[in-house]
Formats: sequence, C-alpha cells, structure tokens
Amino acid sequence: MLPRFYVPAADATGRLVDLPEDEAGHLTRVLRLRAGAPIRVFNGRGGEFDAVVESAARGRVRVRVGAPHPPPRQPRVQVTLAQAVLKGDKMDDVVRDAVMMGVAAVQPIVTARTEASLVALERGRRRTRWERIAIAAAKQCGRADVPPILAPCAFGDAMAALGHLTLPGPGLLFVEPAAEGRAQALGELAAAAPRETTVVIGPEGGWESEELERAAAVCRLVTLGALTLRADAMAIVALAALYAVWKEF
Amino acid sequence: MLPRFYVPAADATGRLVDLPEDEAGHLTRVLRLRAGAPIRVFNGRGGEFDAVVESAARGRVRVRVGAPHPPPRQPRVQVTLAQAVLKGDKMDDVVRDAVMMGVAAVQPIVTARTEASLVALERGRRRTRWERIAIAAAKQCGRADVPPILAPCAFGDAMAALGHLTLPGPGLLFVEPAAEGRAQALGELAAAAPRETTVVIGPEGGWESEELERAAAVCRLVTLGALTLRADAMAIVALAALYAVWKEF
Repeated sequence: MLPRFYVPAADATGRLVDLPEDEAGHLTRVLRLRAGAPIRVFNGRGGEFDAVVESAARGRVRVRVGAPHPPPRQPRVQVTLAQAVLKGDKMDDVVRDAVMMGVAAVQPIVTARTEASLVALERGRRRTRWERIAIAAAKQCGRADVPPILAPCAFGDAMAALGHLTLPGPGLLFVEPAAEGRAQALGELAAAAPRETTVVIGPEGGWESEELERAAAVCRLVTLGALTLRADAMAIVALAALYAVWKEF
Repeated sequence: MLPRFYVPAADATGRLVDLPEDEAGHLTRVLRLRAGAPIRVFNGRGGEFDAVVESAARGRVRVRVGAPHPPPRQPRVQVTLAQAVLKGDKMDDVVRDAVMMGVAAVQPIVTARTEASLVALERGRRRTRWERIAIAAAKQCGRADVPPILAPCAFGDAMAALGHLTLPGPGLLFVEPAAEGRAQALGELAAAAPRETTVVIGPEGGWESEELERAAAVCRLVTLGALTLRADAMAIVALAALYAVWKEF
C-alpha cells in the first residue's frame, strides 16, 4: 500500500502542489522518499489522488497530483460526537478513535463535572492538538476527509445549538447505569437510521441531575443497560452499537 | 456507593472471612477503613454481599459477610473473547475493557503475526498479570464474577478447540477490510442471539491467508466493512456491535 499524505492543496489531477511542513518532514525524514517516488495524497475534503514526488529538498516537498481515487465508503449517518473533555490526554484517544470510526465532526464540551475549563483548553491550545490527531487518524485509517474539531463550548450552549446551528439533531445523550431510570435502552431506538445526529457523551464523573433535565428537552437519553465502562471507552462503544443498529456494518 | 472488594472466600451470610492480601492493602492503606466500616464484597463467582469490617490490623483484614445482593445483569450471550496477544501493554487494556463489557472468558492466542511467543508469555507471567487486571476491572464495573483468563495457546489449537473443549461455538472471526471479500458483513449475522460464542480478534498485522483458510472451516468470517481501526480497539468495537445486534443493550 502506498504511503498517504495530507495535502489540503491537492484538488485536481495534473497540479503541482507543496506538502505542508509536517507532511514534508514525514516524507523526507521518516520515510526517506525521493523524487520519483509514488505516493497517495488526500485533501481532507474527501478528495484522494495518486501522486509522484517531483522534488524533495531541504524540508520542502513538491508533488504532482495524479489520477483520483474513490475514497473508502463512509457511514451513511453523519454523526457529530459531542464529547465532554476527559482528564489528562484521554481525549486524544477518543478523538483518534472517533475519526477512525467515521464521525463527521467532534464537538468538545465542558460539563459541570469536567475538570478542564474553556479558558484552560484555550490556553493549552488543545483544539489545535486534537486537529493534529484527527489528521493523523485520517491518514492511518484511509479517510480522505478530516472531520472538523469544533470550538470547545459549554454543555448548555451545546444543548441550545442542538438541532440547529452546528449540532445536528436528533441528539442522543448516553447516561450511566445510575441514571438508567430516566433513559431508554439503545435497543429501543428505531432501527431506521437518521440522516444525521449528535451523540453526547459525558465526563468521568457522569452527568448532574440539572444537566439531564436540560438534555431531556432536546435529546433522547439512552442507556447501554447495566454496563459500567471507562469514560474514555464510552464514545467508541456507543458509536459501534449505534452503527450496528443502523446497519452501517 | 460502598467500596467493593474481591473476596473469593465470601460465600454465605454470617461468615467471618479474611481479605486477600492485595485487597486488605487496598482497604487499609488506600481507603484507610477501620473496624465497623460497611463495605461490599464479591466472590468472583457471581456472589455479592454487604459486609462489615471486623478487624483491620497489620495488613490483615477480616470481615463479616452480610446480606446477599443480586449481581447486576450480565449479557445473555456468553462470549469468550479469543484475542491475539498485542504489542507492549495493549493487551492489558483489551482485557480490562472486555471484562467491563461482560465477556465470559478471555482466551489469549498467538497467531502467525503475533510478536510474543507462548514461551515469552509464560516467562513474563503475563497470564497472572491479565488475571489481576480482570479482578480490578470486575471491581470497577460492578461485576460479581471474574471471567477466567484461559492459558494462552496457538491459533491452530484455538481453532481445533472451537465448538468443543474450552471455546464455545459458533466462532466469529473478525477480518480487516483487506480480507473483506472472504467475509460477511456483521449486519448479515442472524439477529437471533446464540447462547454462547467465541469472538476471535487478530493482531496488529492482521491474519495470514492460511489462518483465514483454517478459520473458515470452523468460524464465520465477519467484517465491519471499510473501517480500519486500531488493533486494540477491535475487540471492544466488535463486542459493542454484536451486543447491539443481539439486543443486549
């Protein structure tokens, strides 16, 4: 399989385009490719092409874009993952896996029990970090599009945006077993797949009661039954279960 | 919620039982509980009870077993996870998540593309390590049983055992997108849940062609479509998708 590079400028066969700095470094220093080497490029917007290295010197790499390739099929349901920011670097793994599972966008949210504040996320340039992780995950899993990482926002703002603005409805908010009584089982969701949806996943400490009230007005509350999972495993489990219900697999 | 401890000797209300050393250390040094403290104990075989600390001194903890509690419901389908041993400590995470997802047993297997050999696993006492991880995961997720970690075995021996001996049939072996042509989509599996099954997951490098031939005689080859996932995410995604198909959620 040819090595794949993320090249936003690659949009038409025949063009000469430069690789972004990171990608140029990967091509020259890690893979040690030279002029004439065949590669694949994808532009992050669904376009994927054969390409050939034209020149690679002093960290600058120019390639000629070749024939287009059909990208691998993506899930039919466009899922935006609204994930409460997790402790440490656990959010990194969630972003990576969500991209590999095929989500359309990731919306980091700050909830009552989220340790990080919006200010701290901004100061730590976490969104930029997650964007880099999304690109790396797209390279690895063969996606030709890179899903956007939306600007982190407060839980309340996410609930207000649900169904319009950036977050498509219907919203499906997953609750832990303790809050099970207020939720419906995943198996009770209609097997008919929506065109798009927002899947909302909480932080390590779960949801506060007021958050569930607020959510219930705009989301379905969904449970995976008696399962107690790690907070950083919830998103991938919820996505896998939903894709199975919607016959994406 | 009361802290839970793994106490294999706890099998009947009224008994005085000693905690295993690890658990005694957890109770005295980490949680700093003393005589009179109410706790929960589970015996790893499905039994869970209230209990009260009778004495806690010099690393030795004795508790009196109280009223039994119904354990949380487990999946109806008894799934044995036959997982190719992964690199580094990735297998630790797979074991932990599989226990939290409710598998009935874990069978580590060594395939053609597995880095570790059976001898190296034995020398590294890896099985003992995974057993400890299974106990910790059961404590964390509320399971009252601790699923066994079976002795690691070669892929061929696992295929020979499938459907009798330790590995229940039917076997469901998950293949990567490249081998998709030989497999059926997960969505084509019968929605009728089997009583038990073995889910077989490969290593980082995937399966060799001869392994797929061998497996096809005793397993269904199953694909998650075009998704390319990390090897250490495959088991949890496969389990979540299967549970959804079988209406466990």
